[in-house]
Amino acid sequence: MQTAPRHFLSTLDWSRAEIESVLADAKQMKATRKSAQASERFGAGALAGKSVALVFFNPSLRTRSSFEIGIFEMGGHAVVLEPGKGAWPIEYRDGMVMDGEAEEHVEEVARVLSRYCDLIAVRAFPKFQRWEDDREDLVIKGFAKYATVPVVNMETITHPCQELALALTLKERLGTTDGKKFLLTWTYHPKPLNTAVANSGLIIAAKLGFDVTLLCPTPEYVLDSRYMDAARASVAENGRTLTVSHDPASAYAGAHMVYAKSWGALPYFGRWEDEKPIREKHKHFMVDEQKMALTVDGGKGLFSHCLPLRRNVKATDAVVSSPSSLVIDEAENRLHVQKALLRRLLSGHAK
Amino acid sequence: MQTAPRHFLSTLDWSRAEIESVLADAKQMKATRKSAQASERFGAGALAGKSVALVFFNPSLRTRSSFEIGIFEMGGHAVVLEPGKGAWPIEYRDGMVMDGEAEEHVEEVARVLSRYCDLIAVRAFPKFQRWEDDREDLVIKGFAKYATVPVVNMETITHPCQELALALTLKERLGTTDGKKFLLTWTYHPKPLNTAVANSGLIIAAKLGFDVTLLCPTPEYVLDSRYMDAARASVAENGRTLTVSHDPASAYAGAHMVYAKSWGALPYFGRWEDEKPIREKHKHFMVDEQKMALTVDGGKGLFSHCLPLRRNVKATDAVVSSPSSLVIDEAENRLHVQKALLRRLLSGHAK
Amino acid sequence: MQTAPRHFLSTLDWSRAEIESVLADAKQMKATRKSAQASERFGAGALAGKSVALVFFNPSLRTRSSFEIGIFEMGGHAVVLEPGKGAWPIEYRDGMVMDGEAEEHVEEVARVLSRYCDLIAVRAFPKFQRWEDDREDLVIKGFAKYATVPVVNMETITHPCQELALALTLKERLGTTDGKKFLLTWTYHPKPLNTAVANSGLIIAAKLGFDVTLLCPTPEYVLDSRYMDAARASVAENGRTLTVSHDPASAYAGAHMVYAKSWGALPYFGRWEDEKPIREKHKHFMVDEQKMALTVDGGKGLFSHCLPLRRNVKATDAVVSSPSSLVIDEAENRLHVQKALLRRLLSGHAK
Repeated sequence: MQTAPRHFLSTLDWSRAEIESVLADAKQMKATRKSAQASERFGAGALAGKSVALVFFNPSLRTRSSFEIGIFEMGGHAVVLEPGKGAWPIEYRDGMVMDGEAEEHVEEVARVLSRYCDLIAVRAFPKFQRWEDDREDLVIKGFAKYATVPVVNMETITHPCQELALALTLKERLGTTDGKKFLLTWTYHPKPLNTAVANSGLIIAAKLGFDVTLLCPTPEYVLDSRYMDAARASVAENGRTLTVSHDPASAYAGAHMVYAKSWGALPYFGRWEDEKPIREKHKHFMVDEQKMALTVDGGKGLFSHCLPLRRNVKATDAVVSSPSSLVIDEAENRLHVQKALLRRLLSGHAK
Repeated sequence: MQTAPRHFLSTLDWSRAEIESVLADAKQMKATRKSAQASERFGAGALAGKSVALVFFNPSLRTRSSFEIGIFEMGGHAVVLEPGKGAWPIEYRDGMVMDGEAEEHVEEVARVLSRYCDLIAVRAFPKFQRWEDDREDLVIKGFAKYATVPVVNMETITHPCQELALALTLKERLGTTDGKKFLLTWTYHPKPLNTAVANSGLIIAAKLGFDVTLLCPTPEYVLDSRYMDAARASVAENGRTLTVSHDPASAYAGAHMVYAKSWGALPYFGRWEDEKPIREKHKHFMVDEQKMALTVDGGKGLFSHCLPLRRNVKATDAVVSSPSSLVIDEAENRLHVQKALLRRLLSGHAK
Repeated sequence: MQTAPRHFLSTLDWSRAEIESVLADAKQMKATRKSAQASERFGAGALAGKSVALVFFNPSLRTRSSFEIGIFEMGGHAVVLEPGKGAWPIEYRDGMVMDGEAEEHVEEVARVLSRYCDLIAVRAFPKFQRWEDDREDLVIKGFAKYATVPVVNMETITHPCQELALALTLKERLGTTDGKKFLLTWTYHPKPLNTAVANSGLIIAAKLGFDVTLLCPTPEYVLDSRYMDAARASVAENGRTLTVSHDPASAYAGAHMVYAKSWGALPYFGRWEDEKPIREKHKHFMVDEQKMALTVDGGKGLFSHCLPLRRNVKATDAVVSSPSSLVIDEAENRLHVQKALLRRLLSGHAK
């Protein structure tokens, strides 16, 4: 019997030192990307001859492109699977009499893919009906339970690959992150969205030594206790602070980094019509030049967002297109951090 | 003018010796897979620089993954096409005035793909309205008629690649197959399913020298005469027997191998509501520990199924997860047998 | 700041000499394809280690296969993206408050893909409601405006890659094209179709020195002035003629080449029911043996169509399957011309 593989399901399971080490690898791989390509692919590529299954239960543009290309650049091959579209619906609970919709159990899916592939990456968004269910993260946990190869989270209720990309981008622009001020701000969006990137922004900023402020319309928009508690533990360990604010002016004051994201309030899961009036009342949370002027050094704060981004709804054109905007760099860095992560998971470096 | 390519449309067109030779290649390729990958891909790969079109008229997880990865591991590239989703509906009958839905004739599709690719693989399930139509297998025959490269069946009304995978798995576990008892058992499923894997299990077991028993609820579930006759011819040639049974206890007695599959009864095509009560009455055909206890050597019989498999409907958790269950091995072997098959078809070994 | 990349949005932006040079490369690459494959892929491939995004807003069989395979044969990797299916809806207009359907602006899409990929190819059909809108070609122009890598048109309101394939095929069969007679004939189709291939057939034939005849049911079927004017300018430059005809007999007389295509009349955009009776009255525009007998040298004229082709609606079986039919060769040549084009755009040859 093999030992269980190391997965990448959440950064909560990875120490700051491990994360920093992946980021250092990514930085080096980014620097040598153009020269490395041709030679890496031919024999020396870290994924030469290896295959990775990319299992998408939800749509994707950046995630799919960056994984597929990163795997190719290291000599490997990505198989893109879309269960429910090009494949069968799947059961995740053990011991079920499977006489409903599901044609297949995740045990067989994960075990068979483990025979074909060297790694399985999964995207599975929450269903948005009951947060108590969604927070169990059953889909990716089912894959991780039965797979005999590493499993990587491509966004479920957190988005740890986005965290790595954000972290690399922050290090590129800020150098050290310790003691700087990271503002995670809720913004308006016409639909209630997944909390994944908000959870992720919170925990990675706390882990990297920032003083973290969470700005949101009301206490109902505070994130799940699992992530709030983890962030509190991280800031305590780093000697930093975590602040929840509902006042934009004080929250933006002195921020080195403004990270914007929209999300639905957890108490409103399954009754989104009731949340709508609250959201509509907070359209002014949009990131604009006036708010950015309050950031560190008279408005020198950085801005980013994970994309896709609705311009002039979440942030103004002027903010998104300014030299302080990291959105394109952060998206690019998805490629580099994922390459470093996959190389590590597949080389046995991960312990 | 080139000579017509050798296709792989059905094992009925391939001799036992040819099948055994493909299996021997697959066994060797499986043994050396991990060491072979890196070097095979770079120059020496049997499919180096070659492309294969995978044409899916129906969804797939294992078939798509195993073909794509197998082709990659031999240095080739798979193009996945899904006519009707990402491409045009196609006409298969010659001489038609094409003023209906079809935008294109299979003659052009097959001839153009033959210019781009080195091999075309096709999945096209029956339509389940009239078995007289479905049994003509027009889609893959249309591709085979006009293609100037080999055409491979990825499941139509038989599933010959699954046959090869099953056969390799049986040889791995049983050594010689001659004179052993193979039970093909119908099982319940909430919907009527394709007979393809049942037809395939029947004819490959008969070809490989098993004594074959077909267990099904009533005579209406006996398979099409084309496959029953072929199985009878094979067992006669091998000096073996083919038995049809409607009694689980006697059918399981002494079996070396229990192969489970659900399928719809041919006389009920197009009026499936009439078949439903019969199926519902035979839920007890599920493979369970009690039945498996009747197999050879006091219950040492093996079990398999082609997947996807509904647990506790077609077979119990205990059977599916037992050490006698071959479901994961059989699925894995899809990769190896398909690699061996494609290498043969593309190397000119096939005659 | 980099200089703007050279795009391939329309042959109107490329000189005849540039087009002829791409065709010469394609001819050479076609001749050496089989021998080149293995070695080209390993290190020396013109796209070794490079990635190309194929962005499909509309379905495709030949375009997708020929691009994917061509890129593979040169050592690169194609990522296939289908916005709206597997990805997000996109905004193309600048300065919008994005509170509608679009989740993302083309500026971010194009800039991020430019970081991941070396080239972006886009298929985006017109919407068929208002020709005034469709003729602006906003989608591909949006990509071209913001991409920092070359953008290639895989069919929008013209189909320049098809033009290159047609041109190569004509050169293979006719040798010189100057002074020969090219007939572009409208044909019946049950639905109104895009004018893209008609526009393209017209402008490439004019550019290559043909005497060009456009045969269509009524003056309403004449193509957009942008393409008519360009064709007139080309024939003037080459000392040739452009003729519009509504009479099949005179139009076919002496033609070296008959290129068939159906399209919807521009004045009927958005009210297609009114156009239907006109189309229905012109089913006899189908290309048949009688009409082909009027072509050059007592019926030695060539025939082609871009595929997909409805047999016995657009052209008879006898015409499509005759030795004078170029449909399969033209489709094959997509592969070769696109390889030559991509190699040029990515090697810095393009100025």
